[in-house]
Amino acid sequence: MERVLVVNGPNLNLLGRREPEVYGASTLEEIEAALTSRAEELGVAVSFFQSNHEGAIVDALQGAAGDAEAVVLNAGALTHYSLAVRDAIASLPVPVVEVHMSNVFARESFRSVSVISPVCAGTISGLGVDSYLLGLSAAVRLSRGSL
Amino acid sequence: MERVLVVNGPNLNLLGRREPEVYGASTLEEIEAALTSRAEELGVAVSFFQSNHEGAIVDALQGAAGDAEAVVLNAGALTHYSLAVRDAIASLPVPVVEVHMSNVFARESFRSVSVISPVCAGTISGLGVDSYLLGLSAAVRLSRGSL
Amino acid sequence: MERVLVVNGPNLNLLGRREPEVYGASTLEEIEAALTSRAEELGVAVSFFQSNHEGAIVDALQGAAGDAEAVVLNAGALTHYSLAVRDAIASLPVPVVEVHMSNVFARESFRSVSVISPVCAGTISGLGVDSYLLGLSAAVRLSRGSL
Amino acid sequence: MERVLVVNGPNLNLLGRREPEVYGASTLEEIEAALTSRAEELGVAVSFFQSNHEGAIVDALQGAAGDAEAVVLNAGALTHYSLAVRDAIASLPVPVVEVHMSNVFARESFRSVSVISPVCAGTISGLGVDSYLLGLSAAVRLSRGSL
Amino acid sequence: MERVLVVNGPNLNLLGRREPEVYGASTLEEIEAALTSRAEELGVAVSFFQSNHEGAIVDALQGAAGDAEAVVLNAGALTHYSLAVRDAIASLPVPVVEVHMSNVFARESFRSVSVISPVCAGTISGLGVDSYLLGLSAAVRLSRGSL
Amino acid sequence: MERVLVVNGPNLNLLGRREPEVYGASTLEEIEAALTSRAEELGVAVSFFQSNHEGAIVDALQGAAGDAEAVVLNAGALTHYSLAVRDAIASLPVPVVEVHMSNVFARESFRSVSVISPVCAGTISGLGVDSYLLGLSAAVRLSRGSL
Amino acid sequence: MERVLVVNGPNLNLLGRREPEVYGASTLEEIEAALTSRAEELGVAVSFFQSNHEGAIVDALQGAAGDAEAVVLNAGALTHYSLAVRDAIASLPVPVVEVHMSNVFARESFRSVSVISPVCAGTISGLGVDSYLLGLSAAVRLSRGSL
Amino acid sequence: MERVLVVNGPNLNLLGRREPEVYGASTLEEIEAALTSRAEELGVAVSFFQSNHEGAIVDALQGAAGDAEAVVLNAGALTHYSLAVRDAIASLPVPVVEVHMSNVFARESFRSVSVISPVCAGTISGLGVDSYLLGLSAAVRLSRGSL
Amino acid sequence: MERVLVVNGPNLNLLGRREPEVYGASTLEEIEAALTSRAEELGVAVSFFQSNHEGAIVDALQGAAGDAEAVVLNAGALTHYSLAVRDAIASLPVPVVEVHMSNVFARESFRSVSVISPVCAGTISGLGVDSYLLGLSAAVRLSRGSL
Amino acid sequence: MERVLVVNGPNLNLLGRREPEVYGASTLEEIEAALTSRAEELGVAVSFFQSNHEGAIVDALQGAAGDAEAVVLNAGALTHYSLAVRDAIASLPVPVVEVHMSNVFARESFRSVSVISPVCAGTISGLGVDSYLLGLSAAVRLSRGSL
Amino acid sequence: MERVLVVNGPNLNLLGRREPEVYGASTLEEIEAALTSRAEELGVAVSFFQSNHEGAIVDALQGAAGDAEAVVLNAGALTHYSLAVRDAIASLPVPVVEVHMSNVFARESFRSVSVISPVCAGTISGLGVDSYLLGLSAAVRLSRGSL
Amino acid sequence: MERVLVVNGPNLNLLGRREPEVYGASTLEEIEAALTSRAEELGVAVSFFQSNHEGAIVDALQGAAGDAEAVVLNAGALTHYSLAVRDAIASLPVPVVEVHMSNVFARESFRSVSVISPVCAGTISGLGVDSYLLGLSAAVRLSRGSL
Repeated sequence: MERVLVVNGPNLNLLGRREPEVYGASTLEEIEAALTSRAEELGVAVSFFQSNHEGAIVDALQGAAGDAEAVVLNAGALTHYSLAVRDAIASLPVPVVEVHMSNVFARESFRSVSVISPVCAGTISGLGVDSYLLGLSAAVRLSRGSL
Repeated sequence: MERVLVVNGPNLNLLGRREPEVYGASTLEEIEAALTSRAEELGVAVSFFQSNHEGAIVDALQGAAGDAEAVVLNAGALTHYSLAVRDAIASLPVPVVEVHMSNVFARESFRSVSVISPVCAGTISGLGVDSYLLGLSAAVRLSRGSL
Repeated sequence: MERVLVVNGPNLNLLGRREPEVYGASTLEEIEAALTSRAEELGVAVSFFQSNHEGAIVDALQGAAGDAEAVVLNAGALTHYSLAVRDAIASLPVPVVEVHMSNVFARESFRSVSVISPVCAGTISGLGVDSYLLGLSAAVRLSRGSL
Repeated sequence: MERVLVVNGPNLNLLGRREPEVYGASTLEEIEAALTSRAEELGVAVSFFQSNHEGAIVDALQGAAGDAEAVVLNAGALTHYSLAVRDAIASLPVPVVEVHMSNVFARESFRSVSVISPVCAGTISGLGVDSYLLGLSAAVRLSRGSL
Repeated sequence: MERVLVVNGPNLNLLGRREPEVYGASTLEEIEAALTSRAEELGVAVSFFQSNHEGAIVDALQGAAGDAEAVVLNAGALTHYSLAVRDAIASLPVPVVEVHMSNVFARESFRSVSVISPVCAGTISGLGVDSYLLGLSAAVRLSRGSL
Repeated sequence: MERVLVVNGPNLNLLGRREPEVYGASTLEEIEAALTSRAEELGVAVSFFQSNHEGAIVDALQGAAGDAEAVVLNAGALTHYSLAVRDAIASLPVPVVEVHMSNVFARESFRSVSVISPVCAGTISGLGVDSYLLGLSAAVRLSRGSL
Repeated sequence: MERVLVVNGPNLNLLGRREPEVYGASTLEEIEAALTSRAEELGVAVSFFQSNHEGAIVDALQGAAGDAEAVVLNAGALTHYSLAVRDAIASLPVPVVEVHMSNVFARESFRSVSVISPVCAGTISGLGVDSYLLGLSAAVRLSRGSL
Repeated sequence: MERVLVVNGPNLNLLGRREPEVYGASTLEEIEAALTSRAEELGVAVSFFQSNHEGAIVDALQGAAGDAEAVVLNAGALTHYSLAVRDAIASLPVPVVEVHMSNVFARESFRSVSVISPVCAGTISGLGVDSYLLGLSAAVRLSRGSL
Repeated sequence: MERVLVVNGPNLNLLGRREPEVYGASTLEEIEAALTSRAEELGVAVSFFQSNHEGAIVDALQGAAGDAEAVVLNAGALTHYSLAVRDAIASLPVPVVEVHMSNVFARESFRSVSVISPVCAGTISGLGVDSYLLGLSAAVRLSRGSL
Repeated sequence: MERVLVVNGPNLNLLGRREPEVYGASTLEEIEAALTSRAEELGVAVSFFQSNHEGAIVDALQGAAGDAEAVVLNAGALTHYSLAVRDAIASLPVPVVEVHMSNVFARESFRSVSVISPVCAGTISGLGVDSYLLGLSAAVRLSRGSL
Repeated sequence: MERVLVVNGPNLNLLGRREPEVYGASTLEEIEAALTSRAEELGVAVSFFQSNHEGAIVDALQGAAGDAEAVVLNAGALTHYSLAVRDAIASLPVPVVEVHMSNVFARESFRSVSVISPVCAGTISGLGVDSYLLGLSAAVRLSRGSL
Repeated sequence: MERVLVVNGPNLNLLGRREPEVYGASTLEEIEAALTSRAEELGVAVSFFQSNHEGAIVDALQGAAGDAEAVVLNAGALTHYSLAVRDAIASLPVPVVEVHMSNVFARESFRSVSVISPVCAGTISGLGVDSYLLGLSAAVRLSRGSL
């Protein structure tokens, strides 16, 4: 059974609690529950990690090398400047799907560039919780080599 | 039954015929067939339009106002400079999902910016044919207000 | 009797129908009617052309060489990137007055530059339908050499 | 009877006296006479102010708050850098129409940006004396709420 | 017998008719006659296409895949921004020689970059009608693999 | 008894009268009264100067050399481009504290840089009337060498 | 009794120990003692947090949501690039006052921009220990709604 | 007898009084005395004007049209942003020699560009009082047409 | 006996395990063994630290103040954006030698700038394991004041 | 008989000896032989000069004034920064044709601009040895005034 | 007797022979004669050097260290990019006066920056032959310490 | 026995003679002596070349192809703009180690980029004479294939 690791970056533990007009009303727990449910349908195992620490995100991504067949990553604000996360993704032998709930590219100009996109397999943004769910589907397909 | 319009821009009629190392091996006809099949599963009607003409893309998007509940758009090279397409999307009362088969943001630097992303509901890139299929799912969900 | 050609670019056929908070409540038909009426007062003939196709705008501008003594042009989004339209204006032996209903320079930063302004006789923006009406007056004056 | 204040910035007192190939042959006095004449036709009162001092332009614009229903402004070179004039316009409860006799945007590159355009109601440029006359018409229409 | 397609972009139908100080005195018809004559000397067939429409240029380039062994292209203003034309060239299995009659790189700064040069086999500019004639020679040599 | 000069630049005479959503509800007179009151508590003399003229601000700053032990300065829009004010501050033997009522750095991008900050002793912004009051406290402390 | 959290970022634990010509002679302990003393005068409780870890700063700011009524933040070098800290501040329901001991904007050019200023209530810089003390006063006033 | 007007801009009245390490030890009075002495040797009349007001500088330059045969100008900080001064120089029928006592181009980067150089006859900088004296010689030679 | 601390940043724990075409075949353990061996030859003590956490790197650098006479630092991706690491180096009383195994400046453009180079004693890059070994030699020489 | 000087810049003496995948397999001697042969067909005399020294290239170009009727120039890397070569070309009374064997504009971004193109009669690039041969033909035609 | 070395860079040997509308009608020989004559008046010895080779200019400047008390330098096009010349000037123990006959800063934009100005004692431009003569006067004064 | 060529660029012949605070107290002769001594220890032959002429540096690098197994290069100011030197290095079949005595990247901003780094095997900077000595060690190791 494929294993997919879902990684969330800084401030995403606050989802659904603050600024719902930007990030939507779902909490991270609800999103993880939805992902668990979808994972069952897809016949895969899903695990979760969230941290506000760039270094912990890098650690988790490195750890995915042996423990998962694919990764779904919402790097939060790190998306726009963390070359350390970028390098961790680039060195990872399993595919990473980048997801964002909001359309980050339509917000402040400093968010118009993702330094991690070039090393991710694909990117899904702007679709709220569906960004995660579609990201999971894509990750599973990538891990199965069907994509 | 919801209707979804799938619009493809310049040179996408060549999909599967040239530069398969960049664009994959599927032809546009095969992609449209896959989308038709997926549309049936989702219980929606899907129609297709492709043109190498920016103006024709604008015409088609305008026409979607009364004829479709959502749009899936791969604008090809127009993604990076066509403000006319951007304005057409911005004035459209139905949601538009931007899709790209390859990870365009990892290619030449002039492709790192999408002028249409800020006015699309969401973006899916890098996932090959799945970019279209997941884009269709998202478009349907958006048209039903479930997203 | 002087002949003035009024050319409208991409998405301006939607005037009054969508985003009225940006573009005002008047439809293109109403604007053209107002221009026809003003043309009668000024003793000139006015004709109209609208297209979402850059190439068709270029064709129409080229055609004005023998068929009109002046042009009023709202190039829409092409204002900001169409060097083809710019070249067509530059090669035209009759004066072109650039008009915009809204104050385009106060909107997104990519709209702060007009690539066609340097080759137009003058520019009028931000005055709604009056941009067209004053533009017509200016075009007539220019064609009569009174300006 | 509506009152319109016409404000001219640095070096515009030299109009018609120097560099006529750039600024035309009309003197500021002749332009003001033409404006007075047009104002009579329009049934409005017009008053004039010219200064080479940025601060005096700001003072005059502030003073227009109670003394005029609209302003026509040719800020001269201040157009391109005076944020103080911009702020004065922004805080003014009456509409300001920006005018330029020449097509400033076709001249040196540092003149391609107007820092005051975004806070003006509209802009008219390149039409010589007619820029003022059409500007006056627009100002009157704006003050009457007919625009 | 090799077939060479000569494609001309926006406003080049006006060659010899307007702005001769920039573009020279030869009309497009005269240039095409000179090319036909040279083609006979070279023992190749030459055909011609001109359009003001970017989309039509893309269509014509795509069509060259089966119908010509080489292309000579003067993309006019599209040279500087049409990524759609660039993508069409990149996907073409036959060589494209870019030509310009004037030295475009010595004109306005926005003309200093050609977005199509990197995907063309070579570029010839500034030599008037000879740019086309030398371009034809080069295209023939490229199609014969002698270059 | 230390003397502190409080200098206000262009348009700040309008404080509390226009755009209160940006600048707050307090008038300049009320702010000066609050500063006078606070000055009494601090045991210092305070004097005030406001002008819309860059030159007058420079004059006033130069005059502070012998007449004050510290300066509190809100340069308004001049903050962002007046190198003349910058040079006046740099040549002043007494400390200058820069203050802004609103968070200017969060507004338009052209306001994100202060050309005078590098030559001021310190900067206080975003705290409304308190920006002035805290600025006065800091100025007094600086003049007493306790900072 | 209002509670104010004072957060210090990377390398600020070295205050007073290294580079005193840049950062002054006071140690962080002395600054915290001065803040405690001032807090007593103001009738508020103050607590302190320092870390060299961006993630720990984000954690601490998130934690302030329920545990403090205002925050005083010196983010050190993170000021200039940490979008994660910016997002944490933006999502915080209590006001944050940004402080810097030195005039950071007068140092290297990469320090001329603060990515957190736009989401802070206000900024105080260049006043040494007083930056903290005045920041505390401002934070208290903001938490009491008197600002 | 030729008349030369020597104009000094903002803060130059402080020459010799403040920051002598940047501007030298000579006061403006001493410089003017040296210029008067040199003018006698050259057989020309010299007059002086200094102001901290951009508008007054523009007024003075305009006034030179009838009252002087050449101008020596040290515009101080206005050198780097005053397009109003630039326009005044450009419209002046007599030559203007730009002078600077210090090597302004070796100081802060925002001083590396002079907006007035392109419209001055020549520039002399970095030579202390000699910049003025040599500037006077050059101005006289220009006014006599010997240069 | 001099003590040298060797610090490695994010993802360098993967050396020799992933992307050997970029980073070489040696593992971090092998590099550390080579350094230990070289240290013995040089008569110095060497200790090692690696972390994916920027904050931990800052902590380690601060700790070197009392525990080492020199530092060899490969900051990995932090090289290009971590101003916090830069500040930690700047405040360190012992010399830091920056090393990179690959020629980072020849890779992606965002790697062409090192924000830490200006505060390091020296930089060695592109020489594989030898970058570390030569860096150790240099560090020892610097600590002994022989450099 | 017209004389054409063929000038080659730095490193072009290595043609055919190193990096043949970039520069082709022909040596400079072979190219010169081909040019000599073509010159005979065209009835012109051709001479050759190569140097790695910018100054020697300038000397040679200056010398062409009396000794040749046209120049073919491959300036090598100097193409992208040598303003001295540019000035030498600009002052030359005979036409210069710029040639490049490879498509330099498709290589590193710093090669996308030619500082000499604006002062050359025309440019031919990307066509290998044919760039020289066609360049010779163009140079002859230019020297004969037939172009 | 002071010795002054006058150095002229690339293409200045052509002065008076080509492009007189830019560089004036005087030949370098005439300028040198005028300088010799002026040197006699000033009681100094003057020697001359001209080369099109950057390296020879550097050699000559280095040689001036023992052989001259001051240098007058017109570096020609090298002014705008030769950091080698800049370093040679910076290391020279005698003052260098930069001169230009034309107003280089008013020509093409790439000539708006001089990389050598910051290390020269002063700059004189735009005054034709007088730039050299005044430059000589300044150089002598500098060598005598009277400046 | 391996042969290593040590090449020094413009102004490095002055090492130890001028600006010792930047470049150190060692003369080039002393450095070469130290390198000769180290070469004996390493069992390699070392030869030296210095020139202020870019072309001579290119000649020397080309000549190294048959005469040396490795090169140590301090290109001086050419480091920052000489694409001719870059091309010479790129075409060289033996490795080049770039060295700088000072930390060039910490000096003026125009020195922050090395155009030759991307084509060198490695770079060593900031370590004074040791930059050369370590560079020699690295060059030898590279020539022996042990690196």
